[in-house]
Amino acid sequence: MSLIVQKYGGSSVADAVSIKRVAKRIVETRKAGNEVVVVVSAMGDMTDELVDLATEVAPLPSGRELDMLLTAGERISMALLAMAIKAMGFEARSYTGSQAGMATDARHGSARIVEVNPTRIREAIDAGAIAIVAGFQGFNRGTGDITTLGRGGSDTTAVALAAALGAEVCEIYTDVDGVFTADPRIVPTARKLERVTSEEMLELAAAGAKVLYIRAVEYARRHGVIIHVRSSFNNNEGTLVVNPQEGETVEEAMIAGIAVDLGEAKITVVGVPDVPGKAAEIFTIVATTEANIDMIVQNVSAADTGLTDISFTLPMADGARVMQTLLNEKERVGFESLQYDDQIAKLALVGAGMRTSSGISAKLFTALYEAGVNIEMISTSEIRISVVTRADTVEDAVRAVHTAFELDGDDVAVVHAGSGR
Amino acid sequence: MSLIVQKYGGSSVADAVSIKRVAKRIVETRKAGNEVVVVVSAMGDMTDELVDLATEVAPLPSGRELDMLLTAGERISMALLAMAIKAMGFEARSYTGSQAGMATDARHGSARIVEVNPTRIREAIDAGAIAIVAGFQGFNRGTGDITTLGRGGSDTTAVALAAALGAEVCEIYTDVDGVFTADPRIVPTARKLERVTSEEMLELAAAGAKVLYIRAVEYARRHGVIIHVRSSFNNNEGTLVVNPQEGETVEEAMIAGIAVDLGEAKITVVGVPDVPGKAAEIFTIVATTEANIDMIVQNVSAADTGLTDISFTLPMADGARVMQTLLNEKERVGFESLQYDDQIAKLALVGAGMRTSSGISAKLFTALYEAGVNIEMISTSEIRISVVTRADTVEDAVRAVHTAFELDGDDVAVVHAGSGR
Repeated sequence: MSLIVQKYGGSSVADAVSIKRVAKRIVETRKAGNEVVVVVSAMGDMTDELVDLATEVAPLPSGRELDMLLTAGERISMALLAMAIKAMGFEARSYTGSQAGMATDARHGSARIVEVNPTRIREAIDAGAIAIVAGFQGFNRGTGDITTLGRGGSDTTAVALAAALGAEVCEIYTDVDGVFTADPRIVPTARKLERVTSEEMLELAAAGAKVLYIRAVEYARRHGVIIHVRSSFNNNEGTLVVNPQEGETVEEAMIAGIAVDLGEAKITVVGVPDVPGKAAEIFTIVATTEANIDMIVQNVSAADTGLTDISFTLPMADGARVMQTLLNEKERVGFESLQYDDQIAKLALVGAGMRTSSGISAKLFTALYEAGVNIEMISTSEIRISVVTRADTVEDAVRAVHTAFELDGDDVAVVHAGSGR
Repeated sequence: MSLIVQKYGGSSVADAVSIKRVAKRIVETRKAGNEVVVVVSAMGDMTDELVDLATEVAPLPSGRELDMLLTAGERISMALLAMAIKAMGFEARSYTGSQAGMATDARHGSARIVEVNPTRIREAIDAGAIAIVAGFQGFNRGTGDITTLGRGGSDTTAVALAAALGAEVCEIYTDVDGVFTADPRIVPTARKLERVTSEEMLELAAAGAKVLYIRAVEYARRHGVIIHVRSSFNNNEGTLVVNPQEGETVEEAMIAGIAVDLGEAKITVVGVPDVPGKAAEIFTIVATTEANIDMIVQNVSAADTGLTDISFTLPMADGARVMQTLLNEKERVGFESLQYDDQIAKLALVGAGMRTSSGISAKLFTALYEAGVNIEMISTSEIRISVVTRADTVEDAVRAVHTAFELDGDDVAVVHAGSGR
């Protein structure tokens, strides 16, 4: 008998009908002879609605209270899901994050898991029940307070439970068929990947692929959990995210996929004195905002002025805050001005095979040139090349690159609307 | 510094505006130099909406899961209320039933409190914070599961906390100004009572007065908690529910008030063989339905037939179930037929002074006779006389009785819509 952890996002349990559909799917997995532990997000847009309510009563809601509020969301979906399963004649019990032993640090809104002690979950499945666990939430042992894990928290809950229970696989149900070579909404010929390494998945997620959250993939890699990303709308096999052992020979595709991120902006600090320590000074200031800085480019200093420009990309949501923080320090740093540009896009090519192949960059730049796409910034890692382009050219860019690297499949992918937490 | 427990029902926290209004009121109590513990119900109709969702996914939701589901309601309101108070510059922390140490038995949906251990609440108020506690919910120590206290549960939570913390008073905020001599919607000249004994309050609540739930009053009487029923819409003094000590001389009004209950029906078992044990047999059958039987009347047996009729009242909601259960046993019991009548009303006159006064019954029956109201059933306790009348005559009846016992006040009471859990 295998133990399977399944995670369903908010769009999969958006209403009573969806909940009954998911319940049926869980029961089928149980009937097939598996032990099943289910992690579930809040229904549909419930989390957003609760956040709206919070900002109505308090402009800056307390982190502790916001976590208390938001965890009501999974409490509702998990109880309803357990009821629906029981109505089908199977035993099911729902558990909050703290009942499931999800101990975290005390950082409200973005808590990290410090220990998972799923005694009650183990007891429930040993008693033949299906355990339904609230995603996204935990508790801090020191304070006794409820915490939440932040964006993608339910994925992380599922992977952490799979690790603690020694599950055979952690199935992440979503509204697409798996991980694709590119976003099928942009590239209709994108192919579903049968398998991808967790290293590649990390780079894809970091580069804007929305299908899995970085923290969940990191946790899976560290604990050797196999993730199976698949659709809750059909029974197709999805994509396996695997962790090849050190020294294990796996046939690695040169390119796993292409990710596009339209949620970033570029800030350019213009006219920075080209003296040692200035970059450090600027990014120390930026760090105080806790914004997530991605690519950084410094131009060659113009010999006649002794000034240089420094550009970096960051999530649009952090843009205004970082601009204001830098402006406050204009005198001290001594730069001339700031430029803000949110009409950019980031395209990233990811593949573990890059390590052993050459000419990838040349092929990428040629494809972009032939598609008439201008490259504004470049950054590379061992298994990734990222470029920044104008936002309005990125769709042409990704299609051209997809074809150039022979990623096009024969079929056209089907895409469903919506996405979970 | 006094410790005050305040309880706000669902209509007091129905939306963001109401929550901010309640927060202001709590802060004022704090500013006046009191320690404050607040018990709050779920927002507006949230509980009903959650119950509807539950019945959509499962025709008979599991009790454990229904409790898990419903407790999400207070989680939302208490977190929002704490945020709103913090936004006003006062420290506030919300606590679930289990965090507040509300240990109950394992009866899901109608759990009884077995112990209250409010260590965290005590710590919070000692640290200068306002503690916000979820009403209606507790947990069972044996199973570790969440429970709910059933109807009026939030009142009971408030009283139990007041007892455990040794609070000076337990303020129950509602949408009326206090406890009245009669329902002001029926008797516009009804007077607000300044004080009422818990014994009288129990009889009034049992007789249909909706302002406080029986279990909360019972708990308050047993633990010596003073309840102050008052409006959340103004700052008027409400009604004190007090517990006179044994031997304490209190000036007791002859009549505290008149309660009317339109939610009952009458079942008559016709043609019951008048032999010993038949009444016991019938009510043993009725007891299996767990319906809450109130008044019971057995007619004198007709000498020629050896048959008698037995009538009893019960909540309308239980009517169909009890009728069916009795019909199933018709042969065995040997009665002739059943009659069901839901066009009745129950009028109860309550007053601790009845113990030492005579002539109350005569005065009541005379008033009803003069108002042209026919009496169908009568039952009495030490401090209460109840009669059953036709539903369509009960408003005339209560006005006539109110006047006959000189309860009419000079002012006309103001009534607000809605009521809490």
